[in-house]
Amino acid sequence: MPREVGVPVHGLSETVVGVLGGGQLGRMMCQAASQMAIKVIVLDPAENCPASALCHYHMVGSYNDSATVEEFAKRCGVLTVEIEHVDAATLEKLEKQGVDCHPNASTIRIIQINDRASAKRAGELFGYPLMIKSRRLAYDGRGNAVARSEEDLPGAVKDNFTTNHSDELVSYDDSVSSLGGYDRGLYVEKWAPFVKELAVIVARGRDNSILCYPVVETIHRQDVSLWQNICHIVKAPANVPGKIMKLATEVACKAVSSLEGAGVFAIELFLTADGQILLNEVAPRPHNSGHQTIESCFTSQFEQHLRAVVGLPLGDPSLKTPAAMMYNILGEDEGEPGFLIAHQLVGRALRTPGATVHWYDKPEMRKQRKMGHITIVGNSMGVVEARVRSMLNEEITDDQHSGQLPILCLITYSLPSA
Amino acid sequence: MPREVGVPVHGLSETVVGVLGGGQLGRMMCQAASQMAIKVIVLDPAENCPASALCHYHMVGSYNDSATVEEFAKRCGVLTVEIEHVDAATLEKLEKQGVDCHPNASTIRIIQINDRASAKRAGELFGYPLMIKSRRLAYDGRGNAVARSEEDLPGAVKDNFTTNHSDELVSYDDSVSSLGGYDRGLYVEKWAPFVKELAVIVARGRDNSILCYPVVETIHRQDVSLWQNICHIVKAPANVPGKIMKLATEVACKAVSSLEGAGVFAIELFLTADGQILLNEVAPRPHNSGHQTIESCFTSQFEQHLRAVVGLPLGDPSLKTPAAMMYNILGEDEGEPGFLIAHQLVGRALRTPGATVHWYDKPEMRKQRKMGHITIVGNSMGVVEARVRSMLNEEITDDQHSGQLPILCLITYSLPSA
Repeated sequence: MPREVGVPVHGLSETVVGVLGGGQLGRMMCQAASQMAIKVIVLDPAENCPASALCHYHMVGSYNDSATVEEFAKRCGVLTVEIEHVDAATLEKLEKQGVDCHPNASTIRIIQINDRASAKRAGELFGYPLMIKSRRLAYDGRGNAVARSEEDLPGAVKDNFTTNHSDELVSYDDSVSSLGGYDRGLYVEKWAPFVKELAVIVARGRDNSILCYPVVETIHRQDVSLWQNICHIVKAPANVPGKIMKLATEVACKAVSSLEGAGVFAIELFLTADGQILLNEVAPRPHNSGHQTIESCFTSQFEQHLRAVVGLPLGDPSLKTPAAMMYNILGEDEGEPGFLIAHQLVGRALRTPGATVHWYDKPEMRKQRKMGHITIVGNSMGVVEARVRSMLNEEITDDQHSGQLPILCLITYSLPSA
Repeated sequence: MPREVGVPVHGLSETVVGVLGGGQLGRMMCQAASQMAIKVIVLDPAENCPASALCHYHMVGSYNDSATVEEFAKRCGVLTVEIEHVDAATLEKLEKQGVDCHPNASTIRIIQINDRASAKRAGELFGYPLMIKSRRLAYDGRGNAVARSEEDLPGAVKDNFTTNHSDELVSYDDSVSSLGGYDRGLYVEKWAPFVKELAVIVARGRDNSILCYPVVETIHRQDVSLWQNICHIVKAPANVPGKIMKLATEVACKAVSSLEGAGVFAIELFLTADGQILLNEVAPRPHNSGHQTIESCFTSQFEQHLRAVVGLPLGDPSLKTPAAMMYNILGEDEGEPGFLIAHQLVGRALRTPGATVHWYDKPEMRKQRKMGHITIVGNSMGVVEARVRSMLNEEITDDQHSGQLPILCLITYSLPSA
């Protein structure tokens, strides 16, 4: 429970923060918490999950198991998430028992789409082709299936999608695929032309104060040469006119206003050629598109999330450096060969001025797995881009890529909720 | 041992870093290490020392006990310190056994002055009055005694100085006092007029590359009103002409060139009225005068120290924000009342734009104890000063202090070594 007024406080807050999930987001939350001496406990099934070494206590167990989550909730003053694919019913039950959940159970409920009727309704509403995503497994375009017509829906959703672990998919398929059934949680997106993908991290305090981080630009690529997987780059601030910045911020704020609870929310948006802003996805938690805030903003998204959920005042979300870019370190190969490739990139990053390397300490290297990220800051986007280019150039031998940053290939937009 | 070339690396370094001491410096080293997934183990006698919650392993024991340090050294690939008051003879022995110590034992040996002959020699060399400091206990002007003549030396050094714990002194005495004998380690300073106290953090890599952080200004105060103790402020960059910056950096580099080993070194300097730079103190480790680097520089002093000792390339030490100030949170009272006073300051800091609060999570609150620090960054020193003023103004009711920052009262300079 949030601290009562007048009760002595030995650090910045005595509220123990419980996090469902102990991946890299939980890990970076723990890092922010350690600075403020706030205690974070984590529920994650993997014994050596990234957050395990840094949290105050790690309960080894599933955040999808109702009894485990209830047991976990007893140990914390406020319950939050690093993944939104948790059981909304369990959170609803806990809230009835008086457990303080941020984001609220209602928010988790809103962003999940679970039955065929809602998928069909989305098809009727948005038309085909539809991109159907696995809520539990999708990121960076993986865990997706395309339904080109209503008849495709059952096939795209059927229960035989190959996974090897909780957060990874073995195969990426951009044609009709299948996603493990509605019980795994799905949502749909409509194919839409766009010129840029933008994102805004919005923070809401327990006092309902709202602060927005600067609009950023997110860039995906499918590399046909050396890199087989999808890289992810974030540029802060986005290179768009002030008018678009304002509109994107408004759309993001509006999206958050329909959701309940304190914390940070990541709002992914599309900018269309005619200057429209379309809502893509909402994540009620810190997000990959906000990692660069650690180095580039006065208050990182992780510190902000903690401030919000324990009831401290929100911090200043503005940029303290004129420009920043975030580059995900994705697994290029399995095992040792993968580690060696990553290590080469890390070695160049360590020699790049303005670059900071984050390594998530995941026990295993796998293809496409997010193993860490690099943030590069500088006095202008030109300087930052030149630094990133120099850091990457040694590995981009393909003529298609030399001298330019990876470019987005294919993204879709989704319906906000069913 | 530093990683051999060609051996697969799973993170940024597989070298386990052993730190003698687990106070706030060790804690912040652990925070920097967690980002890079470097394992840090700590030797400290206090079970709940600040670093204990964040390190990979905490050996509870004394870093002054030779056998304990030897046992500890077996568990790490490189041995470093967060305090320089460790037994040089033990480190020399370990180095002979092949343990990799950074800073080297020779550096620890050089900065310690242990007998009456060297104090007398200093008196002859520098003249009286001399400031005699306890190497193990002095900081912020505490643990000091003045010898106004050679006859004062025995009295100033005798063994009855009151301490309550390892890092704290109960009383501050600016007249003739006593410091617990030569076996505690002493050094001397000569009174000297000066206009500013400056500091430079110098980093040396294992490849002997040298990088200097921007020159900063350190400010102490003795507050006659609400604050009984000595506050400590660091301004980065120092407000001195470029010529002085250059000279200070040169003096700092020269001081480090006479010491051996990799890591960061803090060089404290005095600027005299006639534009001279005098060496004050050398600490072969991260230092209070470099805390603001966490928020204001591309690479923090803690990350830099780790990069240096494990053999990674040094990072960019330049400022990424135009200006920064660091304000120490010192205990104002014992126990709960002290926590409440600190909490009020922290509350205001959390509402100050550009401010980041670090809380060290020390188990007990004591007067003058460093409990945390606040870093404030901004686009100019004017902006930063205004933010600090606004953060502090609510507590500075004395007319002497309203509207202005605390001002230095008394500092001396020391001989580099006996």
